[in-house]
Amino acid sequence: MPTIAQLGDMASILRRDSLKMTTKAGSGHPTTCLSCAEIMSVLFFNEMGYDVSNAGNPDNDEFLLSKGHGAPILYSALYRAGCTKTDLMSLRKYGSPFEGHPLPGTFPWIKVGTGSLGQGLSIGVGMAIAGKLQKRKYRTYVLMGDSEMAEGSVYEAFELGAHYKLSNLCAIVDVNRLGQRGETMLGHDIDAYKGRLVGFGWNVITVDGHEVKQLVSALGKARKETKKPTVIVAKTFKGKGVSFLENKEGWHGKAVSKDQIEQALKELPNPSVPKINIKKPAKSRGVLSRKQTSLKTKYKLGEEVATRDAYGNALAKLAKVNPAIVATDGEVSNSTKTEKILETRPEHYVEAYIAEQNMVGMALGMSKKGFDVFASSFACFLSRAHDQLRMAALSSANMTVVGSHAGVSIGEDGPSQMGLEDIAIFRCLPGSIVLYPGDAVAAEKLTELAVKTEGLKYIRTNRPKTPVLYKNGDKFPLGEFKVLKQSSKDKAVIVGAGVTVNEALKAYEKLKKKGINAAVVDCYCIKPFSARRFRKLAEGKKVIVVEDHYAEGGIGEMISGTGVEVHSLAVHKIPHSGKPEDLMQYQGIDAGAITNAVLSLVR
Amino acid sequence: MPTIAQLGDMASILRRDSLKMTTKAGSGHPTTCLSCAEIMSVLFFNEMGYDVSNAGNPDNDEFLLSKGHGAPILYSALYRAGCTKTDLMSLRKYGSPFEGHPLPGTFPWIKVGTGSLGQGLSIGVGMAIAGKLQKRKYRTYVLMGDSEMAEGSVYEAFELGAHYKLSNLCAIVDVNRLGQRGETMLGHDIDAYKGRLVGFGWNVITVDGHEVKQLVSALGKARKETKKPTVIVAKTFKGKGVSFLENKEGWHGKAVSKDQIEQALKELPNPSVPKINIKKPAKSRGVLSRKQTSLKTKYKLGEEVATRDAYGNALAKLAKVNPAIVATDGEVSNSTKTEKILETRPEHYVEAYIAEQNMVGMALGMSKKGFDVFASSFACFLSRAHDQLRMAALSSANMTVVGSHAGVSIGEDGPSQMGLEDIAIFRCLPGSIVLYPGDAVAAEKLTELAVKTEGLKYIRTNRPKTPVLYKNGDKFPLGEFKVLKQSSKDKAVIVGAGVTVNEALKAYEKLKKKGINAAVVDCYCIKPFSARRFRKLAEGKKVIVVEDHYAEGGIGEMISGTGVEVHSLAVHKIPHSGKPEDLMQYQGIDAGAITNAVLSLVR
Repeated sequence: MPTIAQLGDMASILRRDSLKMTTKAGSGHPTTCLSCAEIMSVLFFNEMGYDVSNAGNPDNDEFLLSKGHGAPILYSALYRAGCTKTDLMSLRKYGSPFEGHPLPGTFPWIKVGTGSLGQGLSIGVGMAIAGKLQKRKYRTYVLMGDSEMAEGSVYEAFELGAHYKLSNLCAIVDVNRLGQRGETMLGHDIDAYKGRLVGFGWNVITVDGHEVKQLVSALGKARKETKKPTVIVAKTFKGKGVSFLENKEGWHGKAVSKDQIEQALKELPNPSVPKINIKKPAKSRGVLSRKQTSLKTKYKLGEEVATRDAYGNALAKLAKVNPAIVATDGEVSNSTKTEKILETRPEHYVEAYIAEQNMVGMALGMSKKGFDVFASSFACFLSRAHDQLRMAALSSANMTVVGSHAGVSIGEDGPSQMGLEDIAIFRCLPGSIVLYPGDAVAAEKLTELAVKTEGLKYIRTNRPKTPVLYKNGDKFPLGEFKVLKQSSKDKAVIVGAGVTVNEALKAYEKLKKKGINAAVVDCYCIKPFSARRFRKLAEGKKVIVVEDHYAEGGIGEMISGTGVEVHSLAVHKIPHSGKPEDLMQYQGIDAGAITNAVLSLVR
Repeated sequence: MPTIAQLGDMASILRRDSLKMTTKAGSGHPTTCLSCAEIMSVLFFNEMGYDVSNAGNPDNDEFLLSKGHGAPILYSALYRAGCTKTDLMSLRKYGSPFEGHPLPGTFPWIKVGTGSLGQGLSIGVGMAIAGKLQKRKYRTYVLMGDSEMAEGSVYEAFELGAHYKLSNLCAIVDVNRLGQRGETMLGHDIDAYKGRLVGFGWNVITVDGHEVKQLVSALGKARKETKKPTVIVAKTFKGKGVSFLENKEGWHGKAVSKDQIEQALKELPNPSVPKINIKKPAKSRGVLSRKQTSLKTKYKLGEEVATRDAYGNALAKLAKVNPAIVATDGEVSNSTKTEKILETRPEHYVEAYIAEQNMVGMALGMSKKGFDVFASSFACFLSRAHDQLRMAALSSANMTVVGSHAGVSIGEDGPSQMGLEDIAIFRCLPGSIVLYPGDAVAAEKLTELAVKTEGLKYIRTNRPKTPVLYKNGDKFPLGEFKVLKQSSKDKAVIVGAGVTVNEALKAYEKLKKKGINAAVVDCYCIKPFSARRFRKLAEGKKVIVVEDHYAEGGIGEMISGTGVEVHSLAVHKIPHSGKPEDLMQYQGIDAGAITNAVLSLVR
């Protein structure tokens, strides 16, 4: 075990590194690093157990730098602990793993991207739940800034952490008083923080964040707490240790100039690097087992089944076989049908309550600990977690998000409950996969596909019952589409997805009666999309894309972007309450509107 | 003043109405209405002062139904108060103002859409701040559900309400214990709610929410409190008054069947409708004055100015003249440059801290009270408030959102700080206006345009300095684009926006040297877009769209959607830290990439 003096020395080393790195880079947030030097030293060199040779050891204690702009001190700590040999001075250089804010990629010690504030604790909640589910002994530590205590998502994580009694989770708030442009809302009012967090049911310990001994003791107490998660509220000073930086406004996000760095370093202690052995992680219990399975789909052609129900059924069947599946939902699992997992693997259902931001962050945390996670809510409410989804994509997440009640086809509840921008949201996430089943068989197969395919996947489901269109043996490969109707006489191609596939098929019949042949395509995989195959199919024909989604960012624009001229039928007016069929007619996305569009184009 | 008995009778009337309305509609949330009948009765018939003949009276006390699914009882209260004569039984019917969840439109008493939970209090904070700024005496009341107390956005509103000492704001939490699929996290633990909210600095009063006398007294106390906002935590029962509904699970979002309604009504008192005079609002002080102004722009051609700076300068100038301008920012006003309003109208700057959801909700609230609101943050962090933006659009908001630090051109800070999906987000909002200035002159003119144009406007700004391209007298009308280069020999049209306009101009020079002429377009107005004019310009030419944004939902797809074949250059890989020029080259959106694209297309 290191001495208090050694930990103090290490804090000085981390401070010096952080200053030098940012000055060399010419940008960054050195003062943010200086306030948490003792915290980082005590965490990485005394408290945490981890395998310095293996970032992927599943029993490592986990650390999340929620205040991502403190990245330099994290890189410095990892370097000084022996986790990396990369030159710290490459910070922020093109091609360096030491990105301006932590980002996974070539550097395995960074598992998630941070830097959009207020997200780390949610990910920590997910990792802590994963630890409990896997019966592992690792603990999860989250270093938070005080500015991000203004973000509501933080309180979603606090409330859920207490609700699930995550005693294996420890947050440390670095209360350095200063935000980007001045004092935070609570400044150095440590009691106000304490009051809030006690109110959220956490074990709260307040410390002087520059006193190594107090930090060691507080973390020790947190380890002994068995009923509650612990939050350590640490009073610190931004820029600590350098007279012209310490507790001074106007220094956020600024590197010390090359002229001033010598003065800064002169003011800081300059000890030799203490030799400290890093604590080993608790004994490994092996990795979580994953069992893939191919589902036996058993729907009848023409049977009326909502795709949300079919997704729920598939999830339950998959979870029965695969112990890596975990599901979470924003307190609407009886609508999304995620609740069906309760029938087969109830202990792997994590109720997220109406807190979608935390739900997505938590899902990311669980997925990074090896689970195949499904996170669901109404499609529209996923917009609540858009920033968390964005960061999950930057974190190369492997998880599935499911949005039900997509489109105006939900009917009477009205537009506040209608997902009309979800395709745009998920298409915009780099590397994402966007799936939209047109019937129950497709919903089942695509749910299975989501588990088998690495990446950030989105499944869009509908509320109303629709007829089964496919045979149980039909295949739904990634990046393809189904051609439901086709003839050599086709003058048009009608592309539908989800509920509009059915409208397209009805329009097909109407057109046929008028002597006009049209192909019908089910675009069950919106991203990736086989543009080449589609262009070939569409050649010489009019293309009509009909979708229960706003035109912007939707399927029509996606197909337009492949170089095909598209006549788009989409939601283009603020919807209202009413019967699904009235609303689809009002927006011009029903069979009648399709028929008219084809007629006007081909005549 | 009504008697306690009359208010109790009115609660019964509201209950009976809510039951009948939802049974008639065949859907809805009657049990949610039944828990808050006494609260609604006391608020609308005893506490609040409002002009029943004029919903737009600026001195009316304001009411927000944050638990939007309780809409039927709100319509019933307004009907019984004499605010509307529309048949309550038209609830949820196509064309009725009584939408499934409140939605502004034909019914002036509904000013904002609710139904996505956890947003009402933020809007209330905005209205309360507006009241203080306008020195009006109205009070703002927000009725919240207990399920939505899980949403983090709620705590953003609580913290800011306390920070700004909004004693003219009163929240009432209807703690009816049951959420959609079971008990809430805190159930009926009133003390736990109290602890949390005291921790957030509010005046907390707990009551039996079915006791009219307690409610009258609590609201009276709230009115007398001068330092803090008040929250009344009301213990209630979902489905109160009907034996088979009261405190029972499985009844959320379900109308009582036509068979059961008689039994339900039999169990409830059936008083005659009490005659109660509604309190008048405080004496009107007239409407807020708005002064439009045309800015005298004073930039020099070729001068290097960041568009974010030019936006800030314009805001300061506009605010100097127009007392209706208010600005709010997510604690990055020194980056977005919104801070410049402090130079001309400091009392109209509302610091929102790092809480973007509340910022947008608050902006909506202030704008509904007549202010011309600017709300800003980094473009990427606006994704945090996507759901609030969605609801603002459904609420026909008139306000301006500004996103700075758009695109990879921010450089070293890395992708967590880069707005790469913001154009998609804002394009997807129904009725939105999306502006993206290519230089300082355009930034100034478009900021002015935003104030002059009704609607939900988005201005995208960039971090780096770029040369001034336009003359001070140039005009930037809504829905147009600028043609910067054009000749009769053009083989291609290069469309840029923001930072890429400059890259397009550089490519133009390179191509010219190779003997190839190309037109250059600055797409400063992305929505609405003059498709007809553009198609004419592009006829017979290759079109290259280059944007510092993901391809999905961006400008390229927008133009593709107008029927023009587009060669898209956009961000298509996860960005990293590095110099802006390296990052733009890596993504293929710099002058070199444009030049190569044009060459390969025209040769």
